[in-house]
Amino acid sequence: MSAVRVTLEASELPTAWFNILPRLATPLEPPLHPATREPVGPDDLAPLFPMALIAQEMSSEPWIDIPGEVLDILSLWRPTPLVRAERLERALDTPARIYFKDESGSPAGSHKPNTAVPQAFYNRAEGIDRLTTETGAGQWGTALSFACTQFGLDCSVYMVRASYEQKPYRTILMQTWGSEVIPSPVDQPDHPGSLGLAISDAVRDAAGRADTHYALGSVLNHVLLHQTIIGLEAKRQLELAGESDPDVVLGCCGGGSNLGGIALPFVADEHVRLVAAEPSSCPTLTEGHFDYDFGDAAGMTPLLPMYTLGHEFVPPAIHAGGLRYHGDSPIISNLVKSGRMEAVAYPQATTFEAAVQFANTEGKLPAPETGHVIRAVIDEALAAKEAAEERVLLFNFSGHGLLDLSAYDDYRHGRLVDT
Amino acid sequence: MSAVRVTLEASELPTAWFNILPRLATPLEPPLHPATREPVGPDDLAPLFPMALIAQEMSSEPWIDIPGEVLDILSLWRPTPLVRAERLERALDTPARIYFKDESGSPAGSHKPNTAVPQAFYNRAEGIDRLTTETGAGQWGTALSFACTQFGLDCSVYMVRASYEQKPYRTILMQTWGSEVIPSPVDQPDHPGSLGLAISDAVRDAAGRADTHYALGSVLNHVLLHQTIIGLEAKRQLELAGESDPDVVLGCCGGGSNLGGIALPFVADEHVRLVAAEPSSCPTLTEGHFDYDFGDAAGMTPLLPMYTLGHEFVPPAIHAGGLRYHGDSPIISNLVKSGRMEAVAYPQATTFEAAVQFANTEGKLPAPETGHVIRAVIDEALAAKEAAEERVLLFNFSGHGLLDLSAYDDYRHGRLVDT
Repeated sequence: MSAVRVTLEASELPTAWFNILPRLATPLEPPLHPATREPVGPDDLAPLFPMALIAQEMSSEPWIDIPGEVLDILSLWRPTPLVRAERLERALDTPARIYFKDESGSPAGSHKPNTAVPQAFYNRAEGIDRLTTETGAGQWGTALSFACTQFGLDCSVYMVRASYEQKPYRTILMQTWGSEVIPSPVDQPDHPGSLGLAISDAVRDAAGRADTHYALGSVLNHVLLHQTIIGLEAKRQLELAGESDPDVVLGCCGGGSNLGGIALPFVADEHVRLVAAEPSSCPTLTEGHFDYDFGDAAGMTPLLPMYTLGHEFVPPAIHAGGLRYHGDSPIISNLVKSGRMEAVAYPQATTFEAAVQFANTEGKLPAPETGHVIRAVIDEALAAKEAAEERVLLFNFSGHGLLDLSAYDDYRHGRLVDT
Repeated sequence: MSAVRVTLEASELPTAWFNILPRLATPLEPPLHPATREPVGPDDLAPLFPMALIAQEMSSEPWIDIPGEVLDILSLWRPTPLVRAERLERALDTPARIYFKDESGSPAGSHKPNTAVPQAFYNRAEGIDRLTTETGAGQWGTALSFACTQFGLDCSVYMVRASYEQKPYRTILMQTWGSEVIPSPVDQPDHPGSLGLAISDAVRDAAGRADTHYALGSVLNHVLLHQTIIGLEAKRQLELAGESDPDVVLGCCGGGSNLGGIALPFVADEHVRLVAAEPSSCPTLTEGHFDYDFGDAAGMTPLLPMYTLGHEFVPPAIHAGGLRYHGDSPIISNLVKSGRMEAVAYPQATTFEAAVQFANTEGKLPAPETGHVIRAVIDEALAAKEAAEERVLLFNFSGHGLLDLSAYDDYRHGRLVDT
């Protein structure tokens, strides 16, 4: 028996992004200016973002066309395969059918280039020469470095120091694509850093130069918009695999971009459960409170309506650096608050156990972030076994762990610290 | 315009390997016993290899069926995509159409699992509990570790010390899949090692234990046989892309397995040029002599008819560890000797320059070995431009370089040593 891998032709690449904003049951509350606490307008955001992205951030159009030049680059690795994890199913002896969308085949090894490419495109189209950004695990910084190379943009990446020190290969890959990589926080060399602090560094840099904009790899509406290409492809591929709607759609969740990407096109399908998997050491959705809070640590960004642990929260230096964020996407927060989406939290040792089981059965070594959703998927598959039900599970394999191998070494030697 | 990526359905996975042996213009000379210099028979090889592989090594059948259980595992990542490198073509401003077979999406990140999986299968089927092997860059050891996990076999990998020290992530990946990794040569802790020395270590280990066999990742006929699945898929995919036969088929060449895999199905198409790209610091095909020589450094293996630099030759510690082999596959050597295949050699700095150009245009970071064929492809594309001819080039993208990033760091900082 051959494994089920559903591929799509290049001609089947979606040509428009799916915009959840006009379809939310409860409309999103607006971001507020940090000084006035009035809703921010396009002009407030113009020093940091191109107008095309600001328009997408607030758009009420149900679909937004993907520019041809963006499609041209995305098609280097898209459409991505939908794979049935039959060998994992057999190892679990579960009646569940487990499908994953494999986003690990992109140049950066994750879903992040799906938004890095359009962000670089729109900035270049509006005459910007240089982008700054933050990166946690390095997935996002790698993706933006690749995208900037495609459009001839300079790129400076502020990397959370804990990751910078754990993952030298990430830095080299960004430098190979021509980026400058700076450990963050820049002014506290002994601090392990956090995404919130790195955002402050990157925003401060961009705000000070007219030729420079800032790019964010998660959280914002336009970022989740660009990622919906994942769920749109997956819907079509599940049909081709002969499945009706899945019972559960799952993703790991830090800022929410890969989860949003796979889940948003399923929001209207009310019988489909949507599940966010997060680390118990940074339990934004499961233990945070819903409030307006800053997106960064220094309080420079607009106030966003979201689940938050407080913008000064610094999570422990777990290996899933991409999930170390004090807040969460307003869209994801909206869905959790309304009860449309569930959230679960796991300590990291259990996520590495799941990741190694996946590597031993399906052959792909997951990123530490992706290990979180695999833990949740295995638990759902075991629940289906307990219930003796043929449930269909769909999850986003957001990235590979080939640049995170020191984390696996720590796991194998019992050196992981959990909280 | 979307990029051209030709995918095949799982149902189009080839179900038989292509055996070049009965189709060679000049029959292969037999391997000789090191003591008697008489042709070796199956019994001579039985302490190291299962009978199924020994039969394949000497088979005159034109096609050999692939077992279903092997197909089941290969289909985790196969058929692999055929991609047209249009962005590289544009950067070179060449009339050539450049296609590559992307073997980097396998669990090990290279073509090596294509033979690791059947080797583990046949050994398990004949009751073997443990395999030993050597690895240079680590691609082969990683592949065999993955394959052994699938069949519940123990695995010990003797890794060329220069690579062991350059590539800690490779070691962790092999250990994550449960293998033991030992730097080689085991008895000379200050020696940088070579593939020939590591083969001696692995053969010595396997010869001493009844429950243990040895597995080789290149050179031998059955290894190249298993890799022909690459060329068989590529032939079909070129048809689907609307191309007639390619003008040139290229691969990098150390022991010859990835080159053989893509090139052997084209040997009968006489107008198709076949090109091997090797490092100028280990110029087996371009500067070696054709003779019987040992496959390993210590003189424990049968004598093979091949181009060789002498079995005691220790190449410099270049980053393309997979190409540091004193000899070459008898099949590849036969084709070069008869004039059917050409060979070119490059110093490593020029191969990294080509690899970075590929990463910047096509987004995939090549393994240092793969950089050699990309150098050759770029030179062929520029020759086509000079001649103003629309030549079709097909090459094997044998693996990614995500576990070789220290090599890119050395390149960027001018630390590469060439000979």
